[in-house]
Amino acid sequence: MSTTKWVYAFGNGAADGKAEMKNLLGGKGANLAEMANLGLPVPPGFTLTTEVCTYFTKNNSSYPAELKDQVSKALANVEKIIGKKFGDAANPLLVSVRSGARASMPGMMDTVLNLGLNDETVKGLAAASGDERFAYDSYRRFIQMYGDVVLGVEHHHFEEILSEHKEDKGVTLDTQLTAEDWKVIAKAYAKKVHEELGRPFPQDPHEQLWGAIAAVFGSWMNDRATIYRRLHDIPVEWGTAVNIQSMVFGNMGDTSATGVCFTRNPSTGENSFYGEYLINAQGEDVVAGIRTPQNLTKAERQESGNDLPSMEEQMPKLYDDLCAVREKLEKHYRDMQDMEFTVQEGKLWMLQTRSGKRTAKSALRIAVEMANDGVLTREEAIKRIEPGQLDQLLHPTLDPKAPRHVLCKGLPASPGAATGKVAFSAKDAEDLAAKGEKVILVRIETSPEDIGGMHAAQGILTTRGGMTSHAAVVARGMGRPCVAGAGEIRVDYRAQTLTVKGEVVKAGEIITIDGSRGEVMKGEVKTIQPELTGDFATLMTWADEARVLKIRTNAETPEDAATAVKFGAEGIGLCRTEHMFFDPKRIIHMREMILAGNESDRRKALAKLIPYQRDDFTELFTIMKGLPVTIRLLDPPLHEFLPNTDAEMEEVASAAGAKVADVRARAASLHEANPMLGLRGCRLGIVYPEIYEMQCQAIFEAMVEAESKTGTTVLPEVMIPLVGTKKEFDILKEMVDKIAGEVGKKAGKTLKYLVGTMIELPRAALQAGEIAKGAEFFSFGTNDLTQTTFGLSRDDSGSFLQYYQDRGIFEKDPFATLDREGVGELIQIAADRGRKTRPGIKLGICGEHGGDPSSIAFCAQVGLDYVSCSPYRVPIARLAAAQAALTKGKGKELVDA
Amino acid sequence: MSTTKWVYAFGNGAADGKAEMKNLLGGKGANLAEMANLGLPVPPGFTLTTEVCTYFTKNNSSYPAELKDQVSKALANVEKIIGKKFGDAANPLLVSVRSGARASMPGMMDTVLNLGLNDETVKGLAAASGDERFAYDSYRRFIQMYGDVVLGVEHHHFEEILSEHKEDKGVTLDTQLTAEDWKVIAKAYAKKVHEELGRPFPQDPHEQLWGAIAAVFGSWMNDRATIYRRLHDIPVEWGTAVNIQSMVFGNMGDTSATGVCFTRNPSTGENSFYGEYLINAQGEDVVAGIRTPQNLTKAERQESGNDLPSMEEQMPKLYDDLCAVREKLEKHYRDMQDMEFTVQEGKLWMLQTRSGKRTAKSALRIAVEMANDGVLTREEAIKRIEPGQLDQLLHPTLDPKAPRHVLCKGLPASPGAATGKVAFSAKDAEDLAAKGEKVILVRIETSPEDIGGMHAAQGILTTRGGMTSHAAVVARGMGRPCVAGAGEIRVDYRAQTLTVKGEVVKAGEIITIDGSRGEVMKGEVKTIQPELTGDFATLMTWADEARVLKIRTNAETPEDAATAVKFGAEGIGLCRTEHMFFDPKRIIHMREMILAGNESDRRKALAKLIPYQRDDFTELFTIMKGLPVTIRLLDPPLHEFLPNTDAEMEEVASAAGAKVADVRARAASLHEANPMLGLRGCRLGIVYPEIYEMQCQAIFEAMVEAESKTGTTVLPEVMIPLVGTKKEFDILKEMVDKIAGEVGKKAGKTLKYLVGTMIELPRAALQAGEIAKGAEFFSFGTNDLTQTTFGLSRDDSGSFLQYYQDRGIFEKDPFATLDREGVGELIQIAADRGRKTRPGIKLGICGEHGGDPSSIAFCAQVGLDYVSCSPYRVPIARLAAAQAALTKGKGKELVDA
Repeated sequence: MSTTKWVYAFGNGAADGKAEMKNLLGGKGANLAEMANLGLPVPPGFTLTTEVCTYFTKNNSSYPAELKDQVSKALANVEKIIGKKFGDAANPLLVSVRSGARASMPGMMDTVLNLGLNDETVKGLAAASGDERFAYDSYRRFIQMYGDVVLGVEHHHFEEILSEHKEDKGVTLDTQLTAEDWKVIAKAYAKKVHEELGRPFPQDPHEQLWGAIAAVFGSWMNDRATIYRRLHDIPVEWGTAVNIQSMVFGNMGDTSATGVCFTRNPSTGENSFYGEYLINAQGEDVVAGIRTPQNLTKAERQESGNDLPSMEEQMPKLYDDLCAVREKLEKHYRDMQDMEFTVQEGKLWMLQTRSGKRTAKSALRIAVEMANDGVLTREEAIKRIEPGQLDQLLHPTLDPKAPRHVLCKGLPASPGAATGKVAFSAKDAEDLAAKGEKVILVRIETSPEDIGGMHAAQGILTTRGGMTSHAAVVARGMGRPCVAGAGEIRVDYRAQTLTVKGEVVKAGEIITIDGSRGEVMKGEVKTIQPELTGDFATLMTWADEARVLKIRTNAETPEDAATAVKFGAEGIGLCRTEHMFFDPKRIIHMREMILAGNESDRRKALAKLIPYQRDDFTELFTIMKGLPVTIRLLDPPLHEFLPNTDAEMEEVASAAGAKVADVRARAASLHEANPMLGLRGCRLGIVYPEIYEMQCQAIFEAMVEAESKTGTTVLPEVMIPLVGTKKEFDILKEMVDKIAGEVGKKAGKTLKYLVGTMIELPRAALQAGEIAKGAEFFSFGTNDLTQTTFGLSRDDSGSFLQYYQDRGIFEKDPFATLDREGVGELIQIAADRGRKTRPGIKLGICGEHGGDPSSIAFCAQVGLDYVSCSPYRVPIARLAAAQAALTKGKGKELVDA
Repeated sequence: MSTTKWVYAFGNGAADGKAEMKNLLGGKGANLAEMANLGLPVPPGFTLTTEVCTYFTKNNSSYPAELKDQVSKALANVEKIIGKKFGDAANPLLVSVRSGARASMPGMMDTVLNLGLNDETVKGLAAASGDERFAYDSYRRFIQMYGDVVLGVEHHHFEEILSEHKEDKGVTLDTQLTAEDWKVIAKAYAKKVHEELGRPFPQDPHEQLWGAIAAVFGSWMNDRATIYRRLHDIPVEWGTAVNIQSMVFGNMGDTSATGVCFTRNPSTGENSFYGEYLINAQGEDVVAGIRTPQNLTKAERQESGNDLPSMEEQMPKLYDDLCAVREKLEKHYRDMQDMEFTVQEGKLWMLQTRSGKRTAKSALRIAVEMANDGVLTREEAIKRIEPGQLDQLLHPTLDPKAPRHVLCKGLPASPGAATGKVAFSAKDAEDLAAKGEKVILVRIETSPEDIGGMHAAQGILTTRGGMTSHAAVVARGMGRPCVAGAGEIRVDYRAQTLTVKGEVVKAGEIITIDGSRGEVMKGEVKTIQPELTGDFATLMTWADEARVLKIRTNAETPEDAATAVKFGAEGIGLCRTEHMFFDPKRIIHMREMILAGNESDRRKALAKLIPYQRDDFTELFTIMKGLPVTIRLLDPPLHEFLPNTDAEMEEVASAAGAKVADVRARAASLHEANPMLGLRGCRLGIVYPEIYEMQCQAIFEAMVEAESKTGTTVLPEVMIPLVGTKKEFDILKEMVDKIAGEVGKKAGKTLKYLVGTMIELPRAALQAGEIAKGAEFFSFGTNDLTQTTFGLSRDDSGSFLQYYQDRGIFEKDPFATLDREGVGELIQIAADRGRKTRPGIKLGICGEHGGDPSSIAFCAQVGLDYVSCSPYRVPIARLAAAQAALTKGKGKELVDA
């Protein structure tokens, strides 16, 4: 019987694992192993696999039987390499215990440093390091961290002890405290833990170790991690690994340091070494943004005007060592790396490497440059860009010519511009956003607790921390503009104000931030459309060559249509005609039509609407220059056009020359218990054929007009919504053909167009073979298909959808990412049956899923002809479609330059 | 190239067709052919097939090219047999032109008699018959009928001419008019037609013939026929045949007669000859109920106290001839026949035979007696009963001991008792019924235009007409109680009153009719439950032996459960627990629970509900005596339990000790745009687990109690509603098992039960294979599955469902009869996938479709284990299940007595 290997060792130029084993070892563990294999200086350690986490979660927080033994052996190996013993009073081995999931989840799970210290080993550390102050500072840090993370003794207990002690001593800074002070404080900390828990702080290093392991595995299921997973689509099943590694110290005086660096600039993508470090500090100090850090390179220091020396200048030898590591790792991984390092008494140690998070702009530059340099193929370059990230580039930026009232500058931590009302807490930001307000979240610094508020905000502004601070890293990941470390601003949470150079901005007032330049402005600043040239255009060209799926857009206004064409849309996949009726001039006639008691009066009202509809379509056809335009006939229930309040009812009554009571009665008679499942879509077209007739007349007359005006052929595709039976479709297709015939006859030509349907009901999907006898195209209306397949109203699911996601009942929001098992099977069935009846039937998707990369991949797999999405998602869809084609192995061959 | 045969001849002891060709020749045509083949005296003629109708409907009212020629040849054949010529001025052949669909549709389509008469041939008819008055009476009847039916000249024009003429002559009765009068009137009729149409009444008999054929084919699509088809589930595609037959006349003096008869009594099923006839009358006179008819047999005359002589007494020789026909036809068809005959100057002619409509009671008696006599097998006997018809026998009848204020007696035309408000028009009856009122439709006589009102009414009362009048035939077909020909009643449509023996009953007042005894009573009369013994019990026993499907019931009250058990239910398939919360004593606590702001307060309120639930279940388990009981956990959204009006809100607030504003706010926060697709079913159980926990605790405690009380094992099946994913089911099954474990532990025993789910969402059907990993049974909730599959709300579809059925978009109401193509495919998929994962998984259906025979046949085909329906439909389901098993060839072998 073979035993499962639960523990993987690394260090001393060798490792059990490697980079490819991320699923088992987590990202951190796999890359530590890889670095060790590459011969880089990695403090020795070992990794408990993600399978242990899964076992732990499923088995009521217990471990596999073999684990204890495997950990003992791995620990012994570390002791041997380092030459120290865990728990040895004379020369103790100290370790860090850190989480490490398959995907990076910065700051989400727990970490314990300096583990192995107790009342005895602290003395050994003091002796071995020759620095008693360092030893007791480390010990008190350990008690605090372990107490908080593992034992659940709240942070503030320790803060209070420290504050009191400093007060007693009459000092304000930690650096003013002596070894003796830390000794006293460490004792007080341990006593507090005893008081709180009713049992002493654990002195046995092995007990400490297992406690920390359990805490890290347990933190996989904590609230912060759960929210982060949801926001980043990380399945709960993945689990985290635990990395146990011998400690190295960046805080052992001026020959020690700690830092974070990127092999290229993560903000611009420029191929220059980039990073920050702190002399005599622990790694957490850089990440947490507590001290403003020093630059890595001289060039960077000069550019930013930092007074503190750069590492290149201050530690030239170690800087060269780090440059060598940079070169080796980027060449090895063929991607920009984000590394953590520590220098302990003049020796460089690598603590982590991973693929670096980057802005969309830098991602494009890096991918294009690496492809041009032959490091990557074009296919690889295409696959390197996360499609959703492009969103950052597609939105307006500040107009450089617009006047700006710049309050101050901070770090350009995440690009893009944002305007919104100031909110000083994550909760306020979420509340305002829930009301539809645009918000800028302003914090002194952010912490993982602020994730929800950061997501809800349009942009983030902090007054402390650097380019690798929590706020900066998370904002870049989310695509939110961010200005970090704007130190001139003073934030007063209690007064709910920020003050800068004497100027006061209150909560709720509007500010604008420019995350690309680090500027903070009062009020709103005019924006301009982005220029989609350079690396963006290059990569999009490559993507277009690779993809098979066509990309269309959902648009009904000329503005949207023009934007989409600029973004590369190859047609309109969904023009929602009802949106055209909400204009005040038009809704009057729409309401007249609804209030009419008979067909003849309805026709009179419709006759007033027809010129508007015809002009709308003429304009759309002209903009689309011969590209196909899918027009959906009226879909929503009529009551959506009627007013709700008494005042509005009176207005409508007087405008329509009707009695208020009649308006109210008609509204009441149209009321539906479940409007989503009521008299709408093609049901309207069948019960009130005159409405669809008017729309078709407008479409075909506009077609004639646009063709004669532009000399280009117009390709209208008339789409019948909410079809559930072949007969519904056939009745309405006959009507469309009749009107087209009449308009064509008048114009003296034969009109060419398609008539098709939305597949948005389960029954339509099942009956697709029958419906395709008449239908020339299908467009999957996945919004409604998701609602009916799940029996789940999008409007009403808010009350429990979040809860469902948090509990893992839904892995993802099915309205954002297509449910492949249920809705997807119906799409597959409909596509198969539709094609069987009518080979080559045109198939597309026009629900919101049409702009979601994962859903696009599914559409490619089913072999749809196109996806249709909102204008701003067109480039994202182009890239996602290319990636889908390449992954599927169906992409066209790309010739590399 | 072979030519299609569009025309089938019959007569003179031979025919092209036969009884089996109903689809092609219609019922009437096929049976005329069969009678001719049997050597019975059938006036010669020919049938235009239903395929001609289909051609006609599809090809813009035109005919196949070969038709003209085939009709000419067939007509020539008739001329040869009869020895008269069509259009011959000396001795003209006259014909009838009648519709004849596959299924009988009495009075729904058009008929033309005496066709072939014109200004010349009428003289020939007068000469040949030696009766000028008869000839001109026939001619004016023909002009009127043809004018009305074929040419569209309204009835009243002719009535006015006749009335004026009678006034001028100072007579009141038609019989007082002479040959000369009819001559003048016929001329005036023809002139009126000329005036109305601007062209003369057609004189060419061939033009007349083709006009009549077109009118009959056209009448297939008229409104009356469309409504009838919908009510009787007759597909529009069937079409009608047209029968053209030489005329015979029952109105040529006292040696002529016309009548209708049944081989057995259609009301009781007794094996005795039964019928009515009129001396010197045309067939239409009997059916229309204009003259009160004479009895066929002496026995019948004596029993009914009729003063007029019976045919047996008046025309003994012809009566014997008819008895011979009776014997021959019943033996040949092996079923009770409904025949029409005419005696022309002492010679018997058979005009029609068909399977006779009968009451449920007589259907049972006939089937059981024929099986006992060896005429039918038991399987055939089972198949002879239309399951839906049993409904007539299952409902209460009048308590014989209850005091009755009998106003008068009429004919017991259709059995059963009914009470309701008097309505004097079909429209009034429909309007009242639409408001939920029970109505008795009171008419002097009914016509096909009254169909809608008859269907809407609880019962029908007429003052004219016999047992074979329109009212009687249609009422029996619909299962509505009917008293016909209550001649003592005088109806005044204008005053909206009926008067009988000086007593006046106004529209809207309540009367009761007893269709089994022919009694009309004022006010409401107490009813009693039916005794289900005799033929009913015998046939049910045979059905139970034949069927494979188990029959359960949907019941939550002890009354319903007891009724269902009496009707033969083999368990409860759906106990809707929410119905148990609406009692005033309980809903207070339910509302307290909903208004509670936190789990702890919710639990407090639930604790008050638990004793009620436990008692409910204990009682149900006790009644069901060890039969399985499927209990569905809470399903509807919580807002259904909250009040709507301000007054109710205040009441709830004061009862719950809450503020009105809070109650209103909670109601508002629970409001949903589409509650059907909202927070309900298992979603409630997941978000508020304490609710389901309470229910499970009540179920299992009741189980323990009922088992110890009765000594019988209780079989609860806990059903989780609205599951869409495996995970939802798994979470809740774990909860059920936990509670069962706790209750069992306390009771010191291991509880045995099943946990399963409703399949009522398309996604659940598709994911059935996954869900079946945990679920021990599936129950198809076809109400909701139909709603979600079609995207169609049952509450809101009223506005267009009727319209959809009238236009044939839906063949049937999908909420009444299971949609096999859509919903059915999902059921098949779920059954297949469920069984693949868990062979032998228990499968049932608990939607309303569980009581619908056609849907039951589908359930049998898919191989479900049981159907569950409302208590009163249990016997219907038992029979339908037997028929399904026999049709499927899966029924067990029955041993015939």
